[in-house]
Amino acid sequence: MRILTSLCLTLFVGFSAIAQQDSLFIKRMSDEIMTNGKAYDLLYELTKKIGGRLAGSPQQQQAAVWGKRNLELLGADRVFLQACKSPNWKRGGTDFAAIVGVQGEARIQPLAALALGNSMGSNGMIEAEVLAVANFDELEKRKDEVKGKIVYFHSAFDETKIQTFRAYGESGAYRRSGASRAAKYGALGIMIHSLSTAPDNAPHTGSMVYDEAYPKIPAVALGPNDAKMLYALAKKSQVKVQLQTYGQFLPDVNDQNVVAELKGSVFPDQYITLGGHLDSWDVNEGAHDDGAGVVHTMEVLRVLKALNYKPKRTIRFVLFANEENGVRGGNEYANQAKLNNENHILALESDEGGFTPRSIGMTASKEAFKKFQSWSSLLKPYGCEVTFGGSGTDIGPLAKVNPSTVIAGLVPDSQRYFDLHHAKTDVFENVNKRELLLGAINIAAIIYLVDQYGVKP
Amino acid sequence: MRILTSLCLTLFVGFSAIAQQDSLFIKRMSDEIMTNGKAYDLLYELTKKIGGRLAGSPQQQQAAVWGKRNLELLGADRVFLQACKSPNWKRGGTDFAAIVGVQGEARIQPLAALALGNSMGSNGMIEAEVLAVANFDELEKRKDEVKGKIVYFHSAFDETKIQTFRAYGESGAYRRSGASRAAKYGALGIMIHSLSTAPDNAPHTGSMVYDEAYPKIPAVALGPNDAKMLYALAKKSQVKVQLQTYGQFLPDVNDQNVVAELKGSVFPDQYITLGGHLDSWDVNEGAHDDGAGVVHTMEVLRVLKALNYKPKRTIRFVLFANEENGVRGGNEYANQAKLNNENHILALESDEGGFTPRSIGMTASKEAFKKFQSWSSLLKPYGCEVTFGGSGTDIGPLAKVNPSTVIAGLVPDSQRYFDLHHAKTDVFENVNKRELLLGAINIAAIIYLVDQYGVKP
Repeated sequence: MRILTSLCLTLFVGFSAIAQQDSLFIKRMSDEIMTNGKAYDLLYELTKKIGGRLAGSPQQQQAAVWGKRNLELLGADRVFLQACKSPNWKRGGTDFAAIVGVQGEARIQPLAALALGNSMGSNGMIEAEVLAVANFDELEKRKDEVKGKIVYFHSAFDETKIQTFRAYGESGAYRRSGASRAAKYGALGIMIHSLSTAPDNAPHTGSMVYDEAYPKIPAVALGPNDAKMLYALAKKSQVKVQLQTYGQFLPDVNDQNVVAELKGSVFPDQYITLGGHLDSWDVNEGAHDDGAGVVHTMEVLRVLKALNYKPKRTIRFVLFANEENGVRGGNEYANQAKLNNENHILALESDEGGFTPRSIGMTASKEAFKKFQSWSSLLKPYGCEVTFGGSGTDIGPLAKVNPSTVIAGLVPDSQRYFDLHHAKTDVFENVNKRELLLGAINIAAIIYLVDQYGVKP
Repeated sequence: MRILTSLCLTLFVGFSAIAQQDSLFIKRMSDEIMTNGKAYDLLYELTKKIGGRLAGSPQQQQAAVWGKRNLELLGADRVFLQACKSPNWKRGGTDFAAIVGVQGEARIQPLAALALGNSMGSNGMIEAEVLAVANFDELEKRKDEVKGKIVYFHSAFDETKIQTFRAYGESGAYRRSGASRAAKYGALGIMIHSLSTAPDNAPHTGSMVYDEAYPKIPAVALGPNDAKMLYALAKKSQVKVQLQTYGQFLPDVNDQNVVAELKGSVFPDQYITLGGHLDSWDVNEGAHDDGAGVVHTMEVLRVLKALNYKPKRTIRFVLFANEENGVRGGNEYANQAKLNNENHILALESDEGGFTPRSIGMTASKEAFKKFQSWSSLLKPYGCEVTFGGSGTDIGPLAKVNPSTVIAGLVPDSQRYFDLHHAKTDVFENVNKRELLLGAINIAAIIYLVDQYGVKP
């Protein structure tokens, strides 16, 4: 009994000493980031000096050059590029939508509209009656009325969902596949309610995909206020609208992931990846999406170097190419990992904005998750905990080629994200310095803990 | 054993059924608030149609009229006023500060400056050398150098403190008592670093108090960028500055708390108070401080009426007068409670902004706190938990006259609060609708739970 007590005490003291040492190191990282953090200044450069960074734009190339240079300056052991081909979608003009008649009478009322990413131009002005439907179910019920019309999907968020990403998940289906679902029944174009939580009228673009079986009709998102007005009007009256868009694909372009590495001193063949994506949409500065993830990644490298930390495992800092309308960068990263037979133990992405972090979401086995969850107390002073289920679009392909990789994501407070996601309001001014830095602290903490203790239960 | 098991099972099932019923009612409140909430629209009226509301200003009176009318429209059983006298401090002019010489050579460099609330005017332009000190310790060490100078206190926040209210607590001493501490040794005026977290140059005002034993010298807060520049300069060079302010007190004015009530059906003599304060500083719209608390309070009344909730206990919805530079409203509320021998079981204030709520802080006995803490799981879906230690300036006096009252406060995320607190940037545009509504949901939930189950352990 005495021996057992003594053993327990030793274990406990041992564990406490480790926990205390970890707690102290995380505090040092936090102090260094809050005092000397460069994430905010780097974000200023990326958003204000470079700007929007759609794949195929000169800015995306400039951003890659900027990223490579800065990762080198921050003192990575090596920085390299992973070449890929990215799609080259161009908006091609100023999208136009307007109400031009109500119940057969002329009325001109412009609508705030943005063509969805990857959608094709309208080939001139389209004029047609609106068929307004609440959802796909109503579309199917009224499929005989669709032909020759412009379908409006009332894809407004379910505001009662406290986690806005859940509402986005539901409404997102209309942006992604609404066009082909309507084209199947002869629609000439579609309009959706922007995937937005904002009490304003800014339209939000974002990626869509055509089903090759049907005509590639134009697709736009309307500003929330205009969308609600149109929906109410079209539910009780015949409404005629005009629509013109200019989208087109030029040939794929040369693109690249920018990868920095700190070589592991004990387990160099175990890789820990963290990253964000360099590209953005064309209508904004991509400050939260995903400038924040890019500078989070760079800040973690900076703080590890500033504190002269020597990782046990190899840590990769990745600025992914082309997340928004192709995921070509994420796919290439997974391809290379497979080709080189790399053992990735953890991949973490920051792609939900630079808001106050609430948790690190981790997708892992039940046993491994228990271990991660025990780290929650170490994150608590920085406002975070470890929750189950994290991911990121760019690290998804890695999880497919290497199912044992623990996939994780920074989970910031989600209330403001869809106010500005893919809208012109996603600019530097809407990022808060302390909130941004806090994200970097929590990512740095989890990367440090995985580097120290691995991912085995 | 069987009986015990059976008893436990009954208790457990009983508890579960209650918890489920509570969870459902809170969800109904949440859905109602997120769908039909009026807090954001009311805040627009208060900030944009009325504006800044310093005690003694016409706007503070307009706000009281507006508050009373709206609380009546929302269906309170009764709405009444509690008269008080508030101080009538006037800024009196456009505060001025500038560097006018460095090392004896003329140089003109204006400094962003705001006189501190309650500070007296300079009686014309003061020109003097700056004595820059890091803190009170340095002031004491260098007291012989103070006479005839303008003292600058480098009261910048400790940025490493993740909870910004802690940094505010430390730096706040310089705003409150810096002037008299320096006047004691013959200073002609003081300047402080604004109590700000923002990476900008907006000066932040706020309340100060003179020690009657010393001359009432002028006191200003400098914009953070200018303050840092001045501090660095004055540490290595002789710097001369000019300072002019115009503050004065006019005779006290008639003011009032606006109080709405829902009468309890079972324990009408047990009072639950929630509130925020109607007044603000003169330089902004008082949107977060404390428009948010005012409309939180009104929204809770609205949702209880919308769901036809009949409280067991008497619930008071209080819009306090004059928090900022006198706490006359809070004192009067406590006086009336004492005079009328009211039994206040809970008082909760929302006065830390309209940001995403992180917890409800509750100050209570250990035993009572255990009970409150068990409600955390009911708040979790709305992003909150119950934490120990909540308060509010306006409910502090009530706690003094009635020490058994549980004192609570909404604790929103604190990262952005001191970016705009008491600065011109505290305007409606910087309040997020969903974050604001989430605050109301969590307050409503805790008020409902206390109404249902009281505060006894």
